[in-house]
Amino acid sequence: MKRGLFIAFEGIDGSGKSTQAKRVASSTAAMLTFEPGDTKLGAALRQLLLHDLDVDPTSRAEALLMAADRAQHVETLIEPALASGKTVITDRFSASTLAYQGFGRRLDQTTLRHVVDFATGGLQPDLTIIVDCELATARQRSSGTKADRLEQLDPSFHAAVRQGFLDLAKQNATFVVIDGNATLDEVNRAVDAALLRQIGLEVPRQ
Amino acid sequence: MKRGLFIAFEGIDGSGKSTQAKRVASSTAAMLTFEPGDTKLGAALRQLLLHDLDVDPTSRAEALLMAADRAQHVETLIEPALASGKTVITDRFSASTLAYQGFGRRLDQTTLRHVVDFATGGLQPDLTIIVDCELATARQRSSGTKADRLEQLDPSFHAAVRQGFLDLAKQNATFVVIDGNATLDEVNRAVDAALLRQIGLEVPRQ
Repeated sequence: MKRGLFIAFEGIDGSGKSTQAKRVASSTAAMLTFEPGDTKLGAALRQLLLHDLDVDPTSRAEALLMAADRAQHVETLIEPALASGKTVITDRFSASTLAYQGFGRRLDQTTLRHVVDFATGGLQPDLTIIVDCELATARQRSSGTKADRLEQLDPSFHAAVRQGFLDLAKQNATFVVIDGNATLDEVNRAVDAALLRQIGLEVPRQ
Repeated sequence: MKRGLFIAFEGIDGSGKSTQAKRVASSTAAMLTFEPGDTKLGAALRQLLLHDLDVDPTSRAEALLMAADRAQHVETLIEPALASGKTVITDRFSASTLAYQGFGRRLDQTTLRHVVDFATGGLQPDLTIIVDCELATARQRSSGTKADRLEQLDPSFHAAVRQGFLDLAKQNATFVVIDGNATLDEVNRAVDAALLRQIGLEVPRQ
């Protein structure tokens, strides 16, 4: 059985990454999943991380909870699907921890990578697509939904996270940055071109 | 302000470690705390780790959740108390992760240490007291309480954990092993002697 492709969409909230993840998964009949929260354990952790404001995790606890969610996600959902030959598309993965907890929370990148590697067991996406977008645009797009604990942080935090994603892309040959400020049709085309060029995945036009 | 002493009691369930932690804390007016679960976040994680059997964390997720509990515990409770000069006694700390998830679950010790160090920010107890005890004795002592998810694992798991604590003690000059098979009065005396000899803490006889 040929192992499935593993693709991660990353970016700040409101960048359009979730729209792209959904569209590509639907067009290619891939398994769509997300972090944090897409397992039974993960759903409980997502609640603690983003919505139960009174538990207030420290930055290190936050990073470890994100990692615990990822370990459960990889071992029980992603790895079995990849092993069975399915293409898996995840809305957020390791780059989110490095960007939010590393660049945003300013935790040490090297130690954080050890934690992330422990969580994934070394699994890395074949392609990570960063949908990059101006903070003002992202804020406007997210304005209809209630802000969670991380979304409530001030603009300098989100600016550091955005820059973090761009820095990570510079260091990784398997990362591609897409301009999420463009029109939806332009973003769609750029994402599809990247998937075809980088990993040979053709996205049928719908 | 002189920094407080930090003491960890470790061992398998039913070893008598909690009894010793409580007695010494009460006799010396130290702050008594425990893992997992002695913060608001920790209480939720303890529930997920030990009692909500249907969330069933993988071994790596389990280790990361224990570490998240510890990070929150250290940053919000232990470090502030030590900094204010208080002696802190904890019922379980880093050695439990290395023994249960490293030796018991057979996760890689080196990587696990990176995770533990990230969680503690490098904090180590001035003295770790391992209360060692035969499995049969421990089981008998715990027989009145409902077994949690880890306690329900088979005897070979608990034997590996017990051996893990003993191996860790051999590698660490700040660890002491106490024979928990002895009578309560003998265990009390051995613990008090270790505290006086190793870190100069005198436990008043009550």
